[in-house]
Amino acid sequence: MENFRFLSPTQIIFGRNAEEQVGNEARKLGQKILLHYGGGSIIRTGLYDKVVKSLRAAGVDYIELGGVKPNPRLSLVQEGIELCRENKVDGILAVGGGSTIDSAKAIGIGVPYAGDVWDFYSGKRLPEETLPVGVVLTLAATGSEASNSSVITNEDGWFKLGLNSNLTRPVFAILNPELTFTLPPYQTASGAADIMAHVMERYFTPTKNVELTDRLCEGVLKTVINNLPLALAQPDDYNARAELMWAGTLAHNDLLSTGRVGDWASHKIEHELSALYDVPHGAGLAVVFPAWMKYVYRHDLDRFVQFAVRVWNVEPDFANPERTAREGIARLSRFFKENGLPTTLPELKIPADRLEEMANKATDYGKKILGQFVKLKTEDVLAIYKLAL
Amino acid sequence: MENFRFLSPTQIIFGRNAEEQVGNEARKLGQKILLHYGGGSIIRTGLYDKVVKSLRAAGVDYIELGGVKPNPRLSLVQEGIELCRENKVDGILAVGGGSTIDSAKAIGIGVPYAGDVWDFYSGKRLPEETLPVGVVLTLAATGSEASNSSVITNEDGWFKLGLNSNLTRPVFAILNPELTFTLPPYQTASGAADIMAHVMERYFTPTKNVELTDRLCEGVLKTVINNLPLALAQPDDYNARAELMWAGTLAHNDLLSTGRVGDWASHKIEHELSALYDVPHGAGLAVVFPAWMKYVYRHDLDRFVQFAVRVWNVEPDFANPERTAREGIARLSRFFKENGLPTTLPELKIPADRLEEMANKATDYGKKILGQFVKLKTEDVLAIYKLAL
Repeated sequence: MENFRFLSPTQIIFGRNAEEQVGNEARKLGQKILLHYGGGSIIRTGLYDKVVKSLRAAGVDYIELGGVKPNPRLSLVQEGIELCRENKVDGILAVGGGSTIDSAKAIGIGVPYAGDVWDFYSGKRLPEETLPVGVVLTLAATGSEASNSSVITNEDGWFKLGLNSNLTRPVFAILNPELTFTLPPYQTASGAADIMAHVMERYFTPTKNVELTDRLCEGVLKTVINNLPLALAQPDDYNARAELMWAGTLAHNDLLSTGRVGDWASHKIEHELSALYDVPHGAGLAVVFPAWMKYVYRHDLDRFVQFAVRVWNVEPDFANPERTAREGIARLSRFFKENGLPTTLPELKIPADRLEEMANKATDYGKKILGQFVKLKTEDVLAIYKLAL
Repeated sequence: MENFRFLSPTQIIFGRNAEEQVGNEARKLGQKILLHYGGGSIIRTGLYDKVVKSLRAAGVDYIELGGVKPNPRLSLVQEGIELCRENKVDGILAVGGGSTIDSAKAIGIGVPYAGDVWDFYSGKRLPEETLPVGVVLTLAATGSEASNSSVITNEDGWFKLGLNSNLTRPVFAILNPELTFTLPPYQTASGAADIMAHVMERYFTPTKNVELTDRLCEGVLKTVINNLPLALAQPDDYNARAELMWAGTLAHNDLLSTGRVGDWASHKIEHELSALYDVPHGAGLAVVFPAWMKYVYRHDLDRFVQFAVRVWNVEPDFANPERTAREGIARLSRFFKENGLPTTLPELKIPADRLEEMANKATDYGKKILGQFVKLKTEDVLAIYKLAL
């Protein structure tokens, strides 16, 4: 086990009607807040009205900025920063999924910073201050509601880059599984794939002697595997939605990486897909992860056998552990497919003609090595893209 | 799943030599701190010197109060409160195990309170303010280093009562598994039993649809089951000690009870043992828990079958689930026994002559019902004590 620091201070408020508490919580963010959201779905479902009512009842002064898109854009972040400065906003309430939360986090660190907020994402600077961010979550997926990470897309060159900083962990996160009842099946499944990917990035580690966190990872994965089909079969199954939602938060608040190094190559490899073709992050991960696994599993066969046996209930073939490992990967692919997700690039309608460009961008033209479980160069990334064809 | 709020803001600092960071962390507690500890063990092991050196290097002003005993006493808490007031102390550093931390928590809430600190434990008042508490942990057991709970024994009548308040969660907890290398085997095993009891109190719940937290509980239990024998066989096995230590914190920071009601009857039943006979809390739990299980398992057979199958790898007997459930309980008892723990009252040298008195005190002479998984009256508690003979 590696030495570690772990801090997860987000106040979780979980359950039916939890969004009714938003006014009281938002008041703690400051005198005047920015209400940040995406498109029409929170208006259609009535959530927008509920939030506004609760804010008003609690006497919270606010201004609004909607329009966050999936793979949230730097231009809107910059607009939000200006708006907050002009209106002397001192806290941000994100109502939505991971994109809205990530956009809110970026605005939060951008407001007190004199330079360009992209500096934090390009790795030039580390944020030292932020406006506090609160969340009402509408999608079980990115885990951004309690994580230290945010990902922003710069339209100038379509760079999609992430920042990790404990500063950006939300102050509170309101999680009502009922708010996810109306999600389309594809988005529900993509969210589940994102959750599983967050766990698997941590699970496939070079660190030895990590039994407790291995078992916690396996528990989260099995819970998602059991509950995604239930949520798809019956979208208003509260318990299935609740399991997915809490799994989504725990998958990415770093509990599961305490004492272990994560891999994170698959996320980088997927980022190039969604930056270039704007596919849902989770669906992209459902394509990339099995391909990555096929490329690397021989590197630590024991770990992939454990994954197959403990997560996928594969009966171990002691005479042929490779077969056991491959069966685990096959079951992951089959699970994605059975739940309506793509598992190949053609299913995402991504052609084969820009794979080299993506592999090059992923490694910053050979300057960066991806991953920790296995270290990948540009040609390895290209081979993984090809395995996904 | 039940609605819930979850907050676990303790900064965890985990790993080899982590105690060297104590000065820098303690400085954040305040201008002047109380260094609170137990007996000679931290002096013998050299930990005391290391802590003092780090405090001095960081320029932290401190006063000292040692002498905390297992099942920490109200009298010392009151002495600590006076000492802090006289010296205008504004933070407390607990160096030790659960007793020292609980004592520090009680002092912390006692200092700003004008009345008697016992009011908080007797249930008369809720604390509204506290001095911040930091921890250097020397024992994997109570989970007090990140929990909201503390238990204090009032020598006047030997009442042992607990308080739950988020206010008392430590600000930071320094966890170095190496500090547990020198623990005697019996204390190591008692600590592990305490950890398992914290999980099992949460696991045996009346709440339905709690898959994720079930699986997290099972993961923590399996980790303790696998690593306690390793730590006993080789006391300086860093990895085994690390698994136990992190398991101990996660067992009791309330993550495992998110969305579910816990039972907690066994803790109450055990408190009477340790209040009257001053036995180690964990050893008392090793006696009480199997007896409690034998008394209640038919109440929710499915849950006990799940416990047997998933935690103890019992092959399910589908024709006779009772047999499966009983085998799970038997394996728990056997595990305690094999690791040097008592599983009966006589092994704790507790005679049968005061069982009725203890049963009466546990239920406050029939005024209180114990437990949530099954509701227990005085006669049930007595029956459980008798099953432990």
